[in-house]
Amino acid sequence: MRIAQVAPLMERVPPRLYGGTERIVSYLTEALVDQGHAVTLFASGDSRTAASLVACSGEALRLDPAVIDIVPHMALMLERVRQRADEFDVLHFHIDCVQMPLLRELGSRAVTTLHGRLDLPDLQPFYREFSDVPLVSISMAQRAPMPPVNWIATVYHGLPDPGPPGAGDGGYLAFLGRISPEKRPDRAIEIARRSGMPLVMAAKVDKVDKDYFETVVEPLLDGDRIRFIGEVDEDQRLDFLGRARALLFPIDWPEPFGLVMIEAMSQGTPTIAFRKGSVPEVIDDGVSGFIVDDVDGAVDAVGRLPGMDRAAVRRRFDQRFTAARMAGDYLDIYGRLRLGQVSPRRVA
Amino acid sequence: MRIAQVAPLMERVPPRLYGGTERIVSYLTEALVDQGHAVTLFASGDSRTAASLVACSGEALRLDPAVIDIVPHMALMLERVRQRADEFDVLHFHIDCVQMPLLRELGSRAVTTLHGRLDLPDLQPFYREFSDVPLVSISMAQRAPMPPVNWIATVYHGLPDPGPPGAGDGGYLAFLGRISPEKRPDRAIEIARRSGMPLVMAAKVDKVDKDYFETVVEPLLDGDRIRFIGEVDEDQRLDFLGRARALLFPIDWPEPFGLVMIEAMSQGTPTIAFRKGSVPEVIDDGVSGFIVDDVDGAVDAVGRLPGMDRAAVRRRFDQRFTAARMAGDYLDIYGRLRLGQVSPRRVA
Repeated sequence: MRIAQVAPLMERVPPRLYGGTERIVSYLTEALVDQGHAVTLFASGDSRTAASLVACSGEALRLDPAVIDIVPHMALMLERVRQRADEFDVLHFHIDCVQMPLLRELGSRAVTTLHGRLDLPDLQPFYREFSDVPLVSISMAQRAPMPPVNWIATVYHGLPDPGPPGAGDGGYLAFLGRISPEKRPDRAIEIARRSGMPLVMAAKVDKVDKDYFETVVEPLLDGDRIRFIGEVDEDQRLDFLGRARALLFPIDWPEPFGLVMIEAMSQGTPTIAFRKGSVPEVIDDGVSGFIVDDVDGAVDAVGRLPGMDRAAVRRRFDQRFTAARMAGDYLDIYGRLRLGQVSPRRVA
Repeated sequence: MRIAQVAPLMERVPPRLYGGTERIVSYLTEALVDQGHAVTLFASGDSRTAASLVACSGEALRLDPAVIDIVPHMALMLERVRQRADEFDVLHFHIDCVQMPLLRELGSRAVTTLHGRLDLPDLQPFYREFSDVPLVSISMAQRAPMPPVNWIATVYHGLPDPGPPGAGDGGYLAFLGRISPEKRPDRAIEIARRSGMPLVMAAKVDKVDKDYFETVVEPLLDGDRIRFIGEVDEDQRLDFLGRARALLFPIDWPEPFGLVMIEAMSQGTPTIAFRKGSVPEVIDDGVSGFIVDDVDGAVDAVGRLPGMDRAAVRRRFDQRFTAARMAGDYLDIYGRLRLGQVSPRRVA
C-alpha cells in the first residue's frame, strides 16, 4: 500500500530527546516498511527512516534557535502533502487539527491519530465542526472530554523489538519520565518509603517544573534510599526499567496512553499504577502490574511483587504492545478507508 | 462587489487594546461598506462592524484566559471561509500565511496583505514555496528581506475621518506607542532635552520590556519636563497627538508602516522621524514632518518646527492617508483579481 505518514515538526522522527508522538510515528513507519509497504514520511529534515523522507523543515523546530513562529512551517508541510496527495492510497496524520480544512477540499482517504490530552477547551468548537472526519484515539479514556466525533478505532501504541527482558536485579523501584505535579513523584517517594524499598528516579525537570522540583521533591531525596539521577538517554531507558523490581506510575491526571508502562512491560517489569486515564486499558491487573487507588494500595502491591512472573509480564507485552501489532491495526484501518468503509459521517 | 475580509482572531475588530492589523481591517471594512459593497468579515465573535460578521471564535483570543492553543481556532476560521468561499468575488486575507495551501486548492480570487515585519527567518522557506500567490505590502521598505514573491501592490494604511485637526497648543513633543528598545524612547528624551522642549510620553510597557523601562527610561524621567503618562485610550490618542508640537519617531528598526505617523498627520502635527523602514515613504520631508539621520538632525528639526504649516500637514493626510483612499486602492486590486489580471505567477 502507498502510505503517507505526516509527523509533527517539533522533534525529528525518531526524536533526539523527549517526543512521544515522534517516537510512535517512527515505530509505526519502520514497521510498515518492514511489512513491505511503500511509506513516505513527511517530517523534519533531520529525521531518520527507511521510508521515503519528505523534509518539511531543515531540522526539528524545537532544536532550532532561529525558529520563532511555527505556523509558516506547518503550512509549508501542508503544501508539500497537498502537492503529492494523489500519490497515496492513504494519508495518516499525527499533527492534530491544522490539516482538516484542506482535507475536506482534497476529499482524501485520510485518517488522523490524536496523540495528546483532549480536555483543552480550545478543541471543543473545532471538533464540533469537524465531527465527521475519521479519528483514531490512543486509548478509550482519551476520548472522554471530546464532543461527539467520528472515532473509527482505538489503536494502542506499540514498541519495536525491545531485546531480551531485564532481570529486575537492581532491586529498586523506578520512577521514569518527567518531574511534574500531575506525575506525582511525591507519591512515588511515599510508596517507596513506606514499603522499605529503594527508589531511583530518572526524570527530566522542565523549566516550568523547576520550582515544584526544588520545593516538593528535592527535600525528600536522601541520595541513598531515595535517589534522583536526572534524565536518562533513550538507549538507557529500557536497561533502567529492566533492572527495576517495578515501575511506579502514581499519576494524578488523565494520561492518554503512558508509553513508559509498556516500556517496563517489554522488560518484564511490572507497573504499579494509579487508576487514571488509560491505566486500566494498558495494565492487566495482576498480570502485567497492579492497578491501585491510593498509596495504601500501592504499598500493598509492592508487597505482592515477589509473586509476579516477569516472563508473564513480557508475554503480555508480546501479545498486546508490539509495533508489528500496532502496524497491523493501522493497516486494517487503511484497508477500510480505501474500501470506503470508513466514510466521513456527520454527527448531529 | 461581494468581498470577504479575513482578520486575525487575537483581537476583536476593531481592537479593544493594541492591535494594528485589526484596526486596519476595521477601517477598510467600514470604508468598503460605506462605498456600497457587500462585505463579510471573518473575525472574533466580539467584533463590531456594519459588515456581515462571521464569528470564528467566541471572543478575541488574546483576552480569553481559556485559550492555550490558537491553532484549532485558526483552522476553524479557515473552514468557515472554505465553506463560503464561492459566495465572494474576492477574498482578502490579513492572517499571514496559514491559508495558502487551502487557497491553492480553492483556486480563489484571493489576495493577502502582509502586515508585519518580514525579516523572520521562519518565513523564507515558506515564501520560496508560495512565490506565486498575490501579496500586498504596506510599504516598499517592508519587502526588503523577502525572497522574490508575487507582490502586486503596496497599499499604504488609511484612517477614517479624524475630525478637525489639533492646534498643537499643548506645547510639548509627543512620544506615543510602546516602550521598547527599537522604538528608542531614550533618543526621544535626548532630543527633547537638547532642544529645550518638554516631552510627554504616552506608551504602554509590555511585560517583556519592563526591565528596559526601569533601567533605561525611568531614570531619565523628571515628572516635569520629561513626563511619562502611561497608556492612553484609543479615543484620547488623536487629542494627545493634536495638542503636540510634533511627534518624535526616533525608531531603530525596519518599521513596516508606523500608523502613529499618519495619526499625527491627521491632526496637523508634524513628525520628526529617523530614516528607517517605511519612514521615507510615509513622511514628505519638509511638508508633513522631517526625516533625520541622527539626534543632531532631530534637534535641528525641532528648531524648524515654528515654520511648519499645520494645515499643510493635514492636507497631506487628506491626500494620501484616508481610509477611503485605502479602500479605493484595494478595490482596484479586487477588480484586477476578478478580471484575472493578477493571475498567480511562479517566480523562479
